Amino acid sequence: MTRYKITIEYDGTDFSGWQRQHNASSVQEFIEQAIEKFTGQKTVLYCAGRTDAGVHALGQVAHFDLDGDSLQTNTVVNAINYHLRPKPIVILDCKIVTEDFHARFSAKKRFYEYRILNRHSSPALDEKRVWHIKYPLNVDLMQQAASYLIGQHDFSSFRASQCQAHSPIKTIEAIKIAKSEYIIIEVEAISFLYHMVRNIVGTLVLAGMNKITPGEVKNILDACDRTKAGVTAPAAGLYFKKVLY
Amino acid sequence: MTRYKITIEYDGTDFSGWQRQHNASSVQEFIEQAIEKFTGQKTVLYCAGRTDAGVHALGQVAHFDLDGDSLQTNTVVNAINYHLRPKPIVILDCKIVTEDFHARFSAKKRFYEYRILNRHSSPALDEKRVWHIKYPLNVDLMQQAASYLIGQHDFSSFRASQCQAHSPIKTIEAIKIAKSEYIIIEVEAISFLYHMVRNIVGTLVLAGMNKITPGEVKNILDACDRTKAGVTAPAAGLYFKKVLY
Repeated sequence: MTRYKITIEYDGTDFSGWQRQHNASSVQEFIEQAIEKFTGQKTVLYCAGRTDAGVHALGQVAHFDLDGDSLQTNTVVNAINYHLRPKPIVILDCKIVTEDFHARFSAKKRFYEYRILNRHSSPALDEKRVWHIKYPLNVDLMQQAASYLIGQHDFSSFRASQCQAHSPIKTIEAIKIAKSEYIIIEVEAISFLYHMVRNIVGTLVLAGMNKITPGEVKNILDACDRTKAGVTAPAAGLYFKKVLY
Repeated sequence: MTRYKITIEYDGTDFSGWQRQHNASSVQEFIEQAIEKFTGQKTVLYCAGRTDAGVHALGQVAHFDLDGDSLQTNTVVNAINYHLRPKPIVILDCKIVTEDFHARFSAKKRFYEYRILNRHSSPALDEKRVWHIKYPLNVDLMQQAASYLIGQHDFSSFRASQCQAHSPIKTIEAIKIAKSEYIIIEVEAISFLYHMVRNIVGTLVLAGMNKITPGEVKNILDACDRTKAGVTAPAAGLYFKKVLY
C-alpha cells in the first residue's frame, strides 16, 4: 500500500462543496472517480479542510491510499488531471508520504484568504470569485478590528450553528489585510470552526464601514454569542489557500 | 450635446473583440445598445484601444456623445450597467469631458498587462484568463530580453501581418515583469502596433526558456522582420489595463 498526498486547486462555484453527498456534485467525488478511472481502485480521499459550496481552493490538501507498488508522482498528477478534465479541479502536486501522515490530523496550520472587491461597479472579470461591497471600506479600521481576534479565544461569536467542532476555542495566528481595489484578508490558524472565517470577515467589514468601532470586536468575541457578530460573508470570496504540515 | 468618457472592464472570452461586426458579439455593440436602451439615442462609441477576440480589459476607455443636458455621471454608470447585465462588461467610471477629448486620439499612454501561469498543472481558477506555460521560465532572462525593446524602434518584427498602422515606429516606455506563480508582463507605450504586445510576449518567453539569449532580441528587433520573432501569445492572457490622457 502506498499513501499519496495531493495538493488541489478548484473553482468551487458549481460544486456542492468538498464533501461527497447524495444527488450533488462534490469535489471529493470527482477526484475519487478520476483516481478510480486511472487505477481501477476505489479510494477514499481525506482532506485538510472541507470547503462549503461556492468556496474555492488555491491549495487544498488531501491523501488517499492505493494498493501495490508506488506510482511515479508525476504520473499520478497527470493521470488524475486527465480524467478530471474539463472540470475546474486540478491536481497541482503529488508526494508519497508515510502511513502516519493524515491530511486532516497532521495539519499544523491552515491559511484561508477572503477576497472583497470594494468599488462601486460589480465585477466583470471576477463574478463568483469575490464579495462585491460598494460601500467604501476603511481597511485601517478593519485591521485594528482584526487585532482583537489574534491568539487563543473562544470563538463562539463566529461559529456557525451547524458547526460540529468539539470546542469553540481556536487560535488565530495572523490576520493580514491588504488593499488595492481588492481587499484581501488572510487568516491563519491551526484549525477553524465552521464558517469562522466568513463570520470574521462579515464582522471586520462592519468595522470597515465604521458601523462598529474596532474595539467592539473584542466585546463581540467576549460575548461568545453568534448573534452579536456580523453576517456570514458569501462563500464566493473565500479561498482555502494552503496547509502546513 | 454632452461628451461622456467611460472606463470599462470586460471579460473578452466570449466576444469577437471590441469592434462592432456583422454576425458577431462585440463589446462595442453591447455598450451602444445599453446606451440606446437607457437614453433612446443611437450613439457611436470610440475607444482607446480596440482589443481582439478573447482579450480582456481592466480599464478600457471610450467616449460617446448624447444630445441634451448633461446627465449625472453616476446615473450614466448605473443605467448602462443595468442594461448590460448579465454580460461580463461593466462601466467602472464616467466623466463629462469637453468636445476636444477623444478616447483614441487624446491618449498619452496605454498600458497592457499579459498574464502567464507558469507551472506544471493547467489552471482551475483562471482558465481563459492566462497563457499556461508548463516549461519553467527564467524571468531574469525575460527581463534582460525586454530591455532591448525599451525606447523608440521600428517594431516590424513584432507587427501582425494585418496591422493597419501607418508606421512601424513605436516607443515603449517600460516593460515590467513580475513573477510569483503568475508572470505578469506590463508594457507601456503611447500606442501599439497590431498584436505587438502578444508578439513581444511570445519572444520574451523564448528568452525565458533559454531558447534565445536576451541579446538576440536586439537582433530580432533590428531585423524588422516578423518571421524572426516568437509566436503570437494567446489572446486570453492579455488585459488592456489603463490609459493616461
